Amino acid sequence: MSEPRVLVLDADPPPRLARLAGRARVLHCDEDSLARHLPWADVLLVWDFTSDAVRHAWPGPGPRPRWVHTASAGVDRLLFPELLDSPTVITNARGVFDGPIAEYVAGLILAMAKDLPGSWEWQRRRTWRHRETVRVSGSRAVVVGSGPIGRRIGVTLGALGIEVALVGRRERRDDPEFGRVHPSAALHELLGDADWVVCAAPLTPQTTGMFDAAAFARMRPTARFLNVGRGPHVVEEDLLAALRAGRPAGAALDVFAREPLPPDSPLWDAPGLLISPHMSGDTHGWRADLDRQFQDNFDRWQAGEPLFNVVDKRLGYVP
Amino acid sequence: MSEPRVLVLDADPPPRLARLAGRARVLHCDEDSLARHLPWADVLLVWDFTSDAVRHAWPGPGPRPRWVHTASAGVDRLLFPELLDSPTVITNARGVFDGPIAEYVAGLILAMAKDLPGSWEWQRRRTWRHRETVRVSGSRAVVVGSGPIGRRIGVTLGALGIEVALVGRRERRDDPEFGRVHPSAALHELLGDADWVVCAAPLTPQTTGMFDAAAFARMRPTARFLNVGRGPHVVEEDLLAALRAGRPAGAALDVFAREPLPPDSPLWDAPGLLISPHMSGDTHGWRADLDRQFQDNFDRWQAGEPLFNVVDKRLGYVP
Repeated sequence: MSEPRVLVLDADPPPRLARLAGRARVLHCDEDSLARHLPWADVLLVWDFTSDAVRHAWPGPGPRPRWVHTASAGVDRLLFPELLDSPTVITNARGVFDGPIAEYVAGLILAMAKDLPGSWEWQRRRTWRHRETVRVSGSRAVVVGSGPIGRRIGVTLGALGIEVALVGRRERRDDPEFGRVHPSAALHELLGDADWVVCAAPLTPQTTGMFDAAAFARMRPTARFLNVGRGPHVVEEDLLAALRAGRPAGAALDVFAREPLPPDSPLWDAPGLLISPHMSGDTHGWRADLDRQFQDNFDRWQAGEPLFNVVDKRLGYVP
Repeated sequence: MSEPRVLVLDADPPPRLARLAGRARVLHCDEDSLARHLPWADVLLVWDFTSDAVRHAWPGPGPRPRWVHTASAGVDRLLFPELLDSPTVITNARGVFDGPIAEYVAGLILAMAKDLPGSWEWQRRRTWRHRETVRVSGSRAVVVGSGPIGRRIGVTLGALGIEVALVGRRERRDDPEFGRVHPSAALHELLGDADWVVCAAPLTPQTTGMFDAAAFARMRPTARFLNVGRGPHVVEEDLLAALRAGRPAGAALDVFAREPLPPDSPLWDAPGLLISPHMSGDTHGWRADLDRQFQDNFDRWQAGEPLFNVVDKRLGYVP
């Protein structure tokens, strides 16, 4: 049997793939050369998960990889018709980001509850200004996304005494972890009770733009909105208007419609908005975890075993 | 029986004490008039717990209150010889601040782990700068103080997956909550393993200045130090020198030797130092909680029942 051919759409730093030595032919490419090498490959590793190059390179002549693995939890960039309609299997990095993102969300919520940004602004002015802050224990969060990231966020917030309502695509009343999962149709109703609204959903046609003017209008004036999902979950101009109008009271965005966020974006100094550069899941060692995860799946693929983290291409995530 | 006389050393806003109406004569005073009214009082409520006026007013003629209650967890301002050697009972606000301070510490640790201050500094510059951050799960904390505040901090950090070593005055190997409590003599040894060092101890002669150059020298270069105890636990000039030398990597102080921290203090812009104005325990409703707590104890006092939160004046805290 000839060695499988693995094409890597590279990012800096590239994956090490040490365990593939002698077992596969590995070729690294960039966005420009992707289309040229695609017919050669049995497997495509989308290491640069911020790239849209796969979408552009995929249609065209020749055979296509039978397996595409993306080093990200979200697979939205791979959900284009030619790939959806092909027999190619998509797998993702489900599991690597859960814990880090849950900690990140907990940190943002506590920072907002304790007004840490305010304290550090007063510190810059060398000014002592005592304020009262809020307890998170006993407060309420709505977490949108019932996959592993949303669940881990829910568990972590629950450990801090926050009452969590988890929202998924469909209602479930016998969820082993949360008891109840609310259907997305109930979101607007739930928003009115929430102190914290957290978006950790997969980006699909159904979830795109779900946080719009109508959603923000349902939030409490004291609520805070957090997005660690994908930028297009949020209608950014609606959020901007909502923050300027004071409802919700604040927000934290780690993801944006356009990344990097351009220097002239009005979001940078929107009132009450905390910005971070798409890093909620990226703790030291995350690249090594992604590298290991792909190689583990490669072992299965080569052994003819079922792959893990296989995306349901119709749903847009690993069910 | 004549109505008991309750003197209140006021702060703004004053306590409401609604349940004392018709049951006690209540007189509000300030630092200047405290000495004049002290012989009149059966009970002294130290509502302004930032004041040193009790120490100055206490020696002098006339009877002294038989009971002093302070609306704070720390009683260090009341531990002067004339009160220590008197039969007067001291009670404190044990219990009110535990949960809020534990959340505050968790928020600071997560904010430092995720470099939220860095993100918000980049945000001010409208600059997208991705960084990798650290997991808190699996990291190690030393929490100094085995009273209810230290314990609650330990439990909260434990819920985030942080491994906690609790340090008290004496060693215990059968602690119902933590299993083991380390003796303060072991502190320097423990510091070398800690990612997070949290001071939540009572201020006593034994704990004053315990975080000095020698202690900081034992910390890891990547460690962070947090103080939510009392300012004099820390030798501030030693911390300043340690931060400038890069060990520990950062610190967060909520309390200071002198409060408010003077505008010309070199701490305001010390490298890696996060400053907040003695507010870690002060969540909305905290004054109402303190008000209720004193009145609950007053009910017991008037009924001749044992007071709760009685301070062991020799130890300097409620044992």
